[in-house]
Amino acid sequence: MANAAIITIGDELLIGQVIDTNSAWMAQELNKIGVDVVCRMAVGDDAAAITNALDAMSSLADVVLITGGLGPTADDITKPLLCGYFGGSMIQNELALENVEHLFRDVFNRPITERNRLQAMVPDVCEVLQNSAGTAPGMLFKKDGKFFVSMPGVPFEMQEMMRKSVLPFLQQELVQTHIAHKTLITAGIGESTLADLVQDIEEALPPYIKLAYLPSYGMVRLRLTARKHYDGSTSGDELSDFFHRMQERVAQYLVAAEDVSMTQALGNTLLDAGRTMCTAESCTGGYISHLITSLPGSSNWFAGSVVSYSNDAKQAALRVKEETLRANGAVSEQTVREMLLGALAATRASCGVATSGIMGPGGGSDAKPVGTVWIAAGDAACIWTKAFHLRFDRLKNIQAAAFLAQKMLREFVLGINEADYTVLHVSPAQTD
Amino acid sequence: MANAAIITIGDELLIGQVIDTNSAWMAQELNKIGVDVVCRMAVGDDAAAITNALDAMSSLADVVLITGGLGPTADDITKPLLCGYFGGSMIQNELALENVEHLFRDVFNRPITERNRLQAMVPDVCEVLQNSAGTAPGMLFKKDGKFFVSMPGVPFEMQEMMRKSVLPFLQQELVQTHIAHKTLITAGIGESTLADLVQDIEEALPPYIKLAYLPSYGMVRLRLTARKHYDGSTSGDELSDFFHRMQERVAQYLVAAEDVSMTQALGNTLLDAGRTMCTAESCTGGYISHLITSLPGSSNWFAGSVVSYSNDAKQAALRVKEETLRANGAVSEQTVREMLLGALAATRASCGVATSGIMGPGGGSDAKPVGTVWIAAGDAACIWTKAFHLRFDRLKNIQAAAFLAQKMLREFVLGINEADYTVLHVSPAQTD
Repeated sequence: MANAAIITIGDELLIGQVIDTNSAWMAQELNKIGVDVVCRMAVGDDAAAITNALDAMSSLADVVLITGGLGPTADDITKPLLCGYFGGSMIQNELALENVEHLFRDVFNRPITERNRLQAMVPDVCEVLQNSAGTAPGMLFKKDGKFFVSMPGVPFEMQEMMRKSVLPFLQQELVQTHIAHKTLITAGIGESTLADLVQDIEEALPPYIKLAYLPSYGMVRLRLTARKHYDGSTSGDELSDFFHRMQERVAQYLVAAEDVSMTQALGNTLLDAGRTMCTAESCTGGYISHLITSLPGSSNWFAGSVVSYSNDAKQAALRVKEETLRANGAVSEQTVREMLLGALAATRASCGVATSGIMGPGGGSDAKPVGTVWIAAGDAACIWTKAFHLRFDRLKNIQAAAFLAQKMLREFVLGINEADYTVLHVSPAQTD
Repeated sequence: MANAAIITIGDELLIGQVIDTNSAWMAQELNKIGVDVVCRMAVGDDAAAITNALDAMSSLADVVLITGGLGPTADDITKPLLCGYFGGSMIQNELALENVEHLFRDVFNRPITERNRLQAMVPDVCEVLQNSAGTAPGMLFKKDGKFFVSMPGVPFEMQEMMRKSVLPFLQQELVQTHIAHKTLITAGIGESTLADLVQDIEEALPPYIKLAYLPSYGMVRLRLTARKHYDGSTSGDELSDFFHRMQERVAQYLVAAEDVSMTQALGNTLLDAGRTMCTAESCTGGYISHLITSLPGSSNWFAGSVVSYSNDAKQAALRVKEETLRANGAVSEQTVREMLLGALAATRASCGVATSGIMGPGGGSDAKPVGTVWIAAGDAACIWTKAFHLRFDRLKNIQAAAFLAQKMLREFVLGINEADYTVLHVSPAQTD
């Protein structure tokens, strides 16, 4: 099993101005080819800290992947430092220079500066990895039997370089074995109750199969990880056996027997049922719609949304009655029912979900405190409703409400867990 | 200046199943009280790796903040390891037990299990930090003049514990100085051209004021960081002087003279102008609406959105004419103009923005390749339009289109950069 460590470089990571999404993406891709990430380290634009990180990470892993610190401005010190660390001198790389000149001339349509041309200077002790998506070339070094790869920190550029150069190289050089993951997704059961439920199966796992509990919002993922042996025998069938035992055990809480998001699980359910959906979003403000449209192919089951943030928009775009808003307020069972019917009419979808709530920090009252959310899921013939009481901050409340709404619509389409909700059969008159 | 290091624990971080947002949040809060984060390290649920990280991080910093690894399930080994590392034995903490029992009885409404009760066991060599938002207590250790704080990995629980216990404690124990940041946001100019533009100002900076370039999407942030001196004199006025010189120099590219997002900058512009906005989103799928509604107070300037993903929804919800779609296609100047007028009518907002494009990976053609986006910004009297050609992956294309749309609407409301767009004055007949 080959090991990797990741170093991310940049003051912006240490002051928290940027969230590091690169490391998670790299770890996922490395895992797929059987490379295990054993440690990640983030350091600032500081020579001593970078040198210390290179020493520490190369003592732990076969390959050290470095991102960031390669931009054209004066706060970037990484490239000369790497050159010194590996005992080289800086030379100009012709292919990299051609790439920089091409990008400025043909893509950016901007005059090239001397700073930009300097990006084509590289240490003479590395193999240069060309950057098809940006100006900073990557660098591959070898030292004491270990590999070091330096890549730009811009996510899209790093990803292209990983796909085209780094992953194929590592697969060829390092990988003698690989690992397999299988994931069950549950909802409506806590981590510790789940652990009790599967305790005997967990205790029977051989040492090369590991179980992890990954809670997030209302779901808990159960992930089994198996490593194939060096001697060539595999644990694949054993992994499947344990996986199926767990799947049967947690059947009543099962959302999916694969590692998908709630959004993808909902999409799969709609596709299977041959239905399309819409959303009417007040408190979730378009977040459900964003989650859905982030998935390629969602246009096959998603028609559209109306985000009715103001009461004006609720009336004009969704035809919520003024008397409904006056008598019950925007955050009410009656309003989300009318919002849902309005969105079905506006988008011509076959079913949908509506949300209205108070996400905080302001806007709460004694009767409807911050965190109160009404959700409706259904179609023109039948509507399920439920009130939830969330207790997080604004962004987390939005995320939790979006999760609950998707779960509720999925259950409506599947016709399961109906007893958890208030069910109203809509008479034709009400849909006018 | 006090230094901190952050250790995040959990296999889920190393396989990339979870993106670490805790570290960025912690770094921001520590910065505000003048604590500098010098290094971050992520390790798996592995005793040797955690011990190694504790040794390495305590050699670099005065305080080591640890998150994760405190859940109730069998994959959590952090608490007993910390107990051994600091030479203690496990005892029951009465307040923590009361808290666990209270949460299960009064909040979760679920029976408590023996595993849950075990969460109240803590090392006898720590100060217990009560968890007001969850079941796992935090722990504060002291060793060789350094502080170690162990917190749960659930973001909301960690944040509550930081605010209520950890930050006040650190401020009292460690902070003798503090740092100040000032940020300028520019758009429409590359990092290297910007560096040439402000080169003389950058070269005149004293050693205790540092300049960083932080590019993201179409914006570059210029961040000046000053450290106050130990002897009590401050560099605050000097920081303001350099900041104002830079602000004048980049005036023509300036988006904001404070560290705000493009969404907040747009909101400020609308508030100043006394206007409300709406969106009609096809390719951005609700993402602009989500960015806006994530901001508390956005209901003062945001009316709502129509996400018209299907052509049906474009016609039914936004009254885009069938002949327009047939003659020009959904991704066209004519369609985004009609979408915008439809959204203004549906939400009763005073201005707005509309997007339609092909985000990939599928759906492109020779005439309209993946990455083609039409955007319209305007009101019932005047509409600006422009076509963009993005070259990222799906999610990044959505983010870039959302950024460009917000930038364009802000410029429309301010009446700047009109020459970059096609301008159409709408006759009253067209708004019918």
